[in-house]
Amino acid sequence: MFESAELGHKIKKSDYKKEVPALREELLKVQMELNESAAFQVIILVGGLDGAGRGGTVNLLNEWMDPRHIQTHGMGEPTDEELDRPMMWRFWRALPPKGKIGVFLGSWYTWPILNRAYGRTRDADLDQSLDRAKKLEKMLVDEGALVIKFWFHLSKEKQKKRLKSLEKNSVTRWKVTKRDWKHFKMYDTFREVYEKVIRQTSTAEAPWLIIEGEDACYRNLTVGKQILSAIRERLDQKAQPPQDILPSPLMPSIDNLHVLKSLDMTQSLTKEEYRKKLKKYQGKLNLLTRDPKFKYTSVLAVFEGNDAGGKGGAIRRITGALDARWYQVIPIAAPTEEERAQPYLWRFWRHLPRKSRVIMFDRSWYGRVLVERVEQFCSKNDWMRAYSEINEFEEQLARHRIVVVKFWLATTKDEQLRRFKEREQIGFKRFKITEDDWRNRDKWEQYELAVADMVDQTSTLDAPWTMVEANSKYFARIKVLKTLCERIEAQLKELYEDGVDYLEKPKKKK
Amino acid sequence: MFESAELGHKIKKSDYKKEVPALREELLKVQMELNESAAFQVIILVGGLDGAGRGGTVNLLNEWMDPRHIQTHGMGEPTDEELDRPMMWRFWRALPPKGKIGVFLGSWYTWPILNRAYGRTRDADLDQSLDRAKKLEKMLVDEGALVIKFWFHLSKEKQKKRLKSLEKNSVTRWKVTKRDWKHFKMYDTFREVYEKVIRQTSTAEAPWLIIEGEDACYRNLTVGKQILSAIRERLDQKAQPPQDILPSPLMPSIDNLHVLKSLDMTQSLTKEEYRKKLKKYQGKLNLLTRDPKFKYTSVLAVFEGNDAGGKGGAIRRITGALDARWYQVIPIAAPTEEERAQPYLWRFWRHLPRKSRVIMFDRSWYGRVLVERVEQFCSKNDWMRAYSEINEFEEQLARHRIVVVKFWLATTKDEQLRRFKEREQIGFKRFKITEDDWRNRDKWEQYELAVADMVDQTSTLDAPWTMVEANSKYFARIKVLKTLCERIEAQLKELYEDGVDYLEKPKKKK
Repeated sequence: MFESAELGHKIKKSDYKKEVPALREELLKVQMELNESAAFQVIILVGGLDGAGRGGTVNLLNEWMDPRHIQTHGMGEPTDEELDRPMMWRFWRALPPKGKIGVFLGSWYTWPILNRAYGRTRDADLDQSLDRAKKLEKMLVDEGALVIKFWFHLSKEKQKKRLKSLEKNSVTRWKVTKRDWKHFKMYDTFREVYEKVIRQTSTAEAPWLIIEGEDACYRNLTVGKQILSAIRERLDQKAQPPQDILPSPLMPSIDNLHVLKSLDMTQSLTKEEYRKKLKKYQGKLNLLTRDPKFKYTSVLAVFEGNDAGGKGGAIRRITGALDARWYQVIPIAAPTEEERAQPYLWRFWRHLPRKSRVIMFDRSWYGRVLVERVEQFCSKNDWMRAYSEINEFEEQLARHRIVVVKFWLATTKDEQLRRFKEREQIGFKRFKITEDDWRNRDKWEQYELAVADMVDQTSTLDAPWTMVEANSKYFARIKVLKTLCERIEAQLKELYEDGVDYLEKPKKKK
Repeated sequence: MFESAELGHKIKKSDYKKEVPALREELLKVQMELNESAAFQVIILVGGLDGAGRGGTVNLLNEWMDPRHIQTHGMGEPTDEELDRPMMWRFWRALPPKGKIGVFLGSWYTWPILNRAYGRTRDADLDQSLDRAKKLEKMLVDEGALVIKFWFHLSKEKQKKRLKSLEKNSVTRWKVTKRDWKHFKMYDTFREVYEKVIRQTSTAEAPWLIIEGEDACYRNLTVGKQILSAIRERLDQKAQPPQDILPSPLMPSIDNLHVLKSLDMTQSLTKEEYRKKLKKYQGKLNLLTRDPKFKYTSVLAVFEGNDAGGKGGAIRRITGALDARWYQVIPIAAPTEEERAQPYLWRFWRHLPRKSRVIMFDRSWYGRVLVERVEQFCSKNDWMRAYSEINEFEEQLARHRIVVVKFWLATTKDEQLRRFKEREQIGFKRFKITEDDWRNRDKWEQYELAVADMVDQTSTLDAPWTMVEANSKYFARIKVLKTLCERIEAQLKELYEDGVDYLEKPKKKK
């Protein structure tokens, strides 16, 4: 795997000096084009051995190109706020918007590699991390990003030489740390881990490019040319319409039976039953969120449903039980300019709560496989891949001990009509009914199929869908509250059983 | 001051029940109007005594209104990312955008009050904090925000009664903490501090509204009605064009002499001198940023200047000396949609660096008093008040030990013409010259006056302007580097002299 990177590649200094001016001019040119078109973002990962010149090359890239449009990230120790969220959050928040270049010196590979080499994790854990990394990169590429991954390599002998020569020079001595030597002593262990990582994550959409790190001229020129040609190619390609690879269709329902048809829509509650149960479950919910172990978890509730299905009312029965400091309702409307310059899921990642919060999404990332699918706002490819992207997203939330609760509030078509008409009558509810609502209603059957597919594809053990029969608002609100209580209770039970010591923040080194 | 709030205000429960439905409907209506017009944001501060019902009232507001458009902030202990930046950063990041309501249960008053009551600070420190608070609120109001400040009051006797009755009830017992009783014992001390705070910060633009906290019906109804009338009034007012109060003019230069004319524009360096000095100061800069004490500071460099003044080149000579992981160049372009929904300075606050970073702004908040003034993109009022807003902003940075360095790169009109023409000749520089540049050039004299006023108004001891004679690029780049080194050196010296123990993060309570 590293054969070509141990051959002793060298570029003569005179040749280097001749080539650089033209390369710089071309790099500046593609960067300007990229910035002005804002067609896609470039994500450059720079991994590799200590002393293999990663930092120097990254600094040089900033010198060659316009540093105003490059964001370089060291990604050292995570902050409090980062530790409070799933691991990938810190990368999502650092993603460059379209038109810009993001350079990551530490990446989603750094910690999995270190942890495995230090023996803190097993092979299976590493495999899981790599699988996650691949999914992330595939998503980024599918969203249009250009992902370039460099690995700076040195043979054992050359790494030793390099560290020693850096140490000898008084100007560069500070660059060599105790940790570098410690890692050098673990060269073979690290190499084994690296090789596995590179092998498993060199994909068609984002292959690893292995750079021999010894000779600075070779290293810099190779990286510069590689970045140039990758951006240039993609810019030219953008002019052509992308080919839409049609995914194979989902399974059609040949007997016209689907999950929505299986609901007993006659379920209801009397006002008196409702009042009693409302008091009971609101009280319970309040107690649960004040449990001492609640500070190790958080709740993310998704509300989807028919128009006029009663999402708002159900949400208010939850907020009514909670302290306003600890919850947040996020209404999902059209994405903003900054959100449109990022991958689809970015605008949801940015709202992820810290621990011990309750976050409610009024509509959510499921818009992709519902309205965007039915109204053809995105390609079939886009919404088809969204199922697995969403599952991966929610799995990351669940792994971080976030309780993910998803509600579909279903009414019958008749009941919806009744509510639409009612809303048109009542003064302060009139704003709630728009032409869009009537238009969506015309596509009732298409939406039903989209919902059925959505439930089939994304109801998982970690993040199951709860179908709520919502013809009776009373019944629906109680079912929502009860389900929420049960899910939080189960999470707390798990936390009590597991103990929580390992969930405490790792101590930071001074 | 608290006389009216100790009278024993009470609303009968039956009257309350009668009034609430209409109030709710009206509140929902103004909230919808606010949300749809997105004309301004509403910032509600809820301060006051423990047990005076602040939390309950805020929860109720969320119940009465649409919680999707309210953001409630507890503002407890700051996170480590927040501690790494000036104190006000955490409030700036929590500001609601136009159209939304932000409720702050802890505010910029909380810590100054606590610190003074605990005797950790002196009266003079409190005065400074209050002065800062007033300036912040004035700026928010000038930017169009509606700021409503409630203070929930209880007499000593009533607070005792209230805490006891909360403790007696098993459902509310958890609300009363040891700290509440500790504060109760300090009632008189706190009252003295409160009174001073309220007296000093009850301004015309944002007066304190004192609410007697004993009776829930009275409290809730008063707060609800107050919010309703304030938003309603502002919404109606928005329909009329605002009156532009003309500020008195700045001092004109009657002899046509100003700071730009006093520069010796013939200063230059030979290529050889340049090379030698470049190496020297880049080396020095690199060393300074690796000083052990550098981790307690950060650098914020502002680059303004004539078009083609050489800002980009100067910035690249700085980045060339630094590790790309620790610097960031922020090019200031037109504000995004999310930025336009916030006060003017918000888009700069969001970029503030953590400690031990170097951040360079290529153009900055000074756009307000330069291009926006000359091109009349904002009213005279807006750019006139910008001087003091900017001074306040930079003072906060400096107080947080951020080195604020501001460069004006000045060329003569002839030299600019030469560079424009040169740029039009050279392939990869052509993108740098636009029609705007030629248009700005026609207004040369107006810009010169704006620059002279800017320097007069905003060159402070903490954040002085450095005028850079930039007809010679070599000379300019060295002056920039040298100045930067000197400023960082001075900051480090101060840190060494002061010791830094008190700059360490306060230990968090478990």
